Amino acid sequence: MNLAEELAKQQRSISVAEFFERNKHLLGFDSPTRGVITTIKEAVDNSLDACEEAMVLPDIYIAIRKQPGEVFRIIVEDNGPGIVPRQVPYVFGKLLYGSRFHQIKQSRGQQGIGISAAVLYAQLTTGLPTVVISRTGPDHPAVRFEVQIDIETNEPDIVSQQEIDWDRTHGTRIQIEFRSTLAAKKRLIEYLKYTSVVNPHARLRLELDDETILFDRVSDDVIACAQAIKPHPHGIEIGQLRRMISPGSGKLEDFLSANFSRVGSKTAREICTRAGLPCTRDAGSLSPDEQKRLIDAMQEVKVPAPPVTQCLSPIGEDLITQSLEKEFQMDFVRARTRPGSVFSGNPFIIEAAIGYGGKIAPEGNAQIMRFANRVPLMYQQGACAITQAIAGMNWKNYSIPQAGLPTGPLLILVHVASTSVPFTSESKDAIAAIPEIEREIVLALQDLGRDLKQFLSRRDRNRLQEDRARAVCAILPDLAVKVAEIVEQPLPDISSIEGKVMKKLVARKRTDDTAVVIELSNYTTHPATLSLYSISADPADDAQPPPDFVTKLDEEYTTVWQITVAPGESWQTRFTGAGRGTLEIRGIDPRQIVVVDQDV
Amino acid sequence: MNLAEELAKQQRSISVAEFFERNKHLLGFDSPTRGVITTIKEAVDNSLDACEEAMVLPDIYIAIRKQPGEVFRIIVEDNGPGIVPRQVPYVFGKLLYGSRFHQIKQSRGQQGIGISAAVLYAQLTTGLPTVVISRTGPDHPAVRFEVQIDIETNEPDIVSQQEIDWDRTHGTRIQIEFRSTLAAKKRLIEYLKYTSVVNPHARLRLELDDETILFDRVSDDVIACAQAIKPHPHGIEIGQLRRMISPGSGKLEDFLSANFSRVGSKTAREICTRAGLPCTRDAGSLSPDEQKRLIDAMQEVKVPAPPVTQCLSPIGEDLITQSLEKEFQMDFVRARTRPGSVFSGNPFIIEAAIGYGGKIAPEGNAQIMRFANRVPLMYQQGACAITQAIAGMNWKNYSIPQAGLPTGPLLILVHVASTSVPFTSESKDAIAAIPEIEREIVLALQDLGRDLKQFLSRRDRNRLQEDRARAVCAILPDLAVKVAEIVEQPLPDISSIEGKVMKKLVARKRTDDTAVVIELSNYTTHPATLSLYSISADPADDAQPPPDFVTKLDEEYTTVWQITVAPGESWQTRFTGAGRGTLEIRGIDPRQIVVVDQDV
Repeated sequence: MNLAEELAKQQRSISVAEFFERNKHLLGFDSPTRGVITTIKEAVDNSLDACEEAMVLPDIYIAIRKQPGEVFRIIVEDNGPGIVPRQVPYVFGKLLYGSRFHQIKQSRGQQGIGISAAVLYAQLTTGLPTVVISRTGPDHPAVRFEVQIDIETNEPDIVSQQEIDWDRTHGTRIQIEFRSTLAAKKRLIEYLKYTSVVNPHARLRLELDDETILFDRVSDDVIACAQAIKPHPHGIEIGQLRRMISPGSGKLEDFLSANFSRVGSKTAREICTRAGLPCTRDAGSLSPDEQKRLIDAMQEVKVPAPPVTQCLSPIGEDLITQSLEKEFQMDFVRARTRPGSVFSGNPFIIEAAIGYGGKIAPEGNAQIMRFANRVPLMYQQGACAITQAIAGMNWKNYSIPQAGLPTGPLLILVHVASTSVPFTSESKDAIAAIPEIEREIVLALQDLGRDLKQFLSRRDRNRLQEDRARAVCAILPDLAVKVAEIVEQPLPDISSIEGKVMKKLVARKRTDDTAVVIELSNYTTHPATLSLYSISADPADDAQPPPDFVTKLDEEYTTVWQITVAPGESWQTRFTGAGRGTLEIRGIDPRQIVVVDQDV
Repeated sequence: MNLAEELAKQQRSISVAEFFERNKHLLGFDSPTRGVITTIKEAVDNSLDACEEAMVLPDIYIAIRKQPGEVFRIIVEDNGPGIVPRQVPYVFGKLLYGSRFHQIKQSRGQQGIGISAAVLYAQLTTGLPTVVISRTGPDHPAVRFEVQIDIETNEPDIVSQQEIDWDRTHGTRIQIEFRSTLAAKKRLIEYLKYTSVVNPHARLRLELDDETILFDRVSDDVIACAQAIKPHPHGIEIGQLRRMISPGSGKLEDFLSANFSRVGSKTAREICTRAGLPCTRDAGSLSPDEQKRLIDAMQEVKVPAPPVTQCLSPIGEDLITQSLEKEFQMDFVRARTRPGSVFSGNPFIIEAAIGYGGKIAPEGNAQIMRFANRVPLMYQQGACAITQAIAGMNWKNYSIPQAGLPTGPLLILVHVASTSVPFTSESKDAIAAIPEIEREIVLALQDLGRDLKQFLSRRDRNRLQEDRARAVCAILPDLAVKVAEIVEQPLPDISSIEGKVMKKLVARKRTDDTAVVIELSNYTTHPATLSLYSISADPADDAQPPPDFVTKLDEEYTTVWQITVAPGESWQTRFTGAGRGTLEIRGIDPRQIVVVDQDV
């Protein structure tokens, strides 16, 4: 027997489960630590996708519980539509099984690999099957499965299946156990925080050790689920076209307008003409050579870009700034949602935000938050097109220092939403360097950079003015003493001058005989809305304007006015009384206020 | 019908061919330009692997031919063992089909994906099947196939099959056509050059446009093909163990020693004891819990590292330096092959080389050559553990400037050889950040860095001395004239002084009456081995020492001495003759020589 025969005996088919068991790092299971995050990410992605499809506000519960022997039990439970019992084993026990692979629309999961890979990883490291409970509605029982994957065939292996009682009317709960550590706790919390930023409609609750962390929703609007579209004629290859054509495809003109996005009968006829084929020709009868002419014509004819708004679901500028504001309370934050664009026939939208100051770390590289289809990207930052686009810009143009990446108290968020996000690997950590995508990222960031520059230069100008004002105020008291001496008058009250110079809010209370006067002057550049508390023995029942409410405790009255004072304006109230007591201003930064109580 | 039922109707299985058609960038087909390189790389990998298995010196012919309409025909032909006809459709027309997936040994291809992905890409972009010709020996006919992949089933589709005449007795030829450009020509040539560096036994011939480029072998030794080993007990998970155990596995002790690398009966018994299981227990009868105890014991018991030399085939320090020397002619080159090591039970060896000067670009970042199992890695340099290890070192310790990466006329080669190279993605562009691998890379480079530093400091010292000597020599002639005037003597011959000062080799010929004297003085710090040619009318037949050979042409004698002169020593020969003619020194850098012919 010759060598070729010998080699032939070793040839065999490899199941996709065997392949990914061997190459588990390709799916984000390169270390047990990372395995925890990947599993939670895959389960949460599925939950969010399912809730969106069901138009439900997602409520997702995540728990990690230490078991004996370095084993961790991970639970993810949602209030989604549930999975019908006959599908559960396939969804969790077979790689490459799913509902979203053949649909052209934005979704988090697409390949039908992620969660089954977690099942595979659990069974590899602990030998334990995964427990799934699912219920599709109040009229249906909840069903509990123990499921694993037959590695050699990539088919589900149902260890047990039974109907159970469950307090939810619909939803899915998955419980996976594998060997791991909790070294990545910080990153896990970061992942959930980021997820919450780009999913403002979701409530995520994490139970870890004895701690519970809630990432609450900032919006009660259910996300409109993206709608699937047909393929665009510019984004199709001959191999796909051949599979679309079948003997029953009908007339060429009808085939084109029925199966492609943005192709009406006019465009369809134009394609036929350019391909040199009659519109009435039976699409199923085209020879290979005619098919080639057809596809060439499809690429050449001008067709409008695919309908972006329908198949994509961007977050929106308001929700992004709101979510970031909640987490970082910055001095500046601005977001942009770019118009839709296309690469290789795939629609995409770039959203970006820039934040400055506040709770952002003041030193080191800018904090970069990367997202794809509302999923945070937590690994391989350096290999990602988003990072490369950021590093390739000249940030000095926007008054931001740069050392490769921009530095300082800067946060940069980029969200790539697409019907087909081009990841560099199946672990979905980084976006590939597609020129169209990089260009849109840069355009969005340049636009935001200009706003940031304006903010920074205004802030610097303000700072300069403030420094000058502070210098003036520092000498004011001495100046007042000097002037009083010269003109031989008592020392004047300079606090309202200070308020004017420093652009503050001045509250002043004085008592003339039996009348108490409280005055508020707004020397800032913004309207001031505040609550004024006067706590004294005066009931102030003749006050003009009258207080908004009064409470009495042990002969002491707390009189409260709720006031808005426009910039440059003053407000005054007067009532009969003996004065004294205290004056308090609430609802405004105390550093912005000067209180002058002349009774004290 | 509720939503879950509706969603269920969209659920379906995705074939691995569909998956990779959609995600072709995961396999290195992200752009048509790159597709050319990926296809050639996959085909050449297969050819080199097959030749190694057949113990044949590889002769690989590669051609790229432009076809009408931006289509390129790629041909790769080898002299390997060939593929038996019944296997051809599977090897080329089915993803995840191969012979090396289940073997634990170093090989270039492993997953049985690469070349079928090229077939898939061709059929997607041009609709054309791939042509394969293969022959397994002189007694077998050559068979020609046209093959493609049924995307929906991932099964081969044989378009045609026929026996043909072929002038090779064994080998395989593949012809693939797809839409592309030749923008990556430079990178392709670089890929082949790099391949040739780490496969010194291979001859690669590229035909491109009208140009032929040959990368010839520098070694005629057939590479000993790596031998497969059994799994190591430290590198196995419970899931794999379960699949290895079958009802016929026999006694536990025998099962362990028969199926695992480095486990003899002593170690096997130790494992059984630690697991609390009798050695005679039937392996097939273990309960899941007992299996878990067994695997824990397997991890805990001390077992020697897997046998590295058997399953790995490093290139070796000599061949690496020889190959690099051939391509770059550097001032300094040194290579290291580290001892074998292990990560997660997978044996690996790191080889590294550092070159300096010569044809290496003098400016910018060091040139990094990355290899995995003798395959050059051409993309994603930034994401690779090799690059990260290099950037993480302090190169200033070795007198090399650094800006992230080291800079200057520096070449760094790193070869990772392993039974299971951990790539970051299925396109096999970058190696994942495995701490054990990074550590070995750093150790190898630190060792080489010390040698480089020594070379550089010696070179700098030499330069300093040379600068000084040059300054002395510059004033010597004037000095000589002055001295000659003062002492009223004829101008002395200062050339040997110059030789002494400049540390050169001085060859001097003079004729005293009828005797010719040739003298060699070695003022360098190294022994000088050279050939001395005296070409004149003198036969020199009485020379002492006599010449090594003499040739006569038209009354002119070429008399040749082959001499080694130790540093600081002199050598002399004397013979009867009239002198004149010429004196030549060969076999040594001419800049190192001063020839003083006093006859002229």
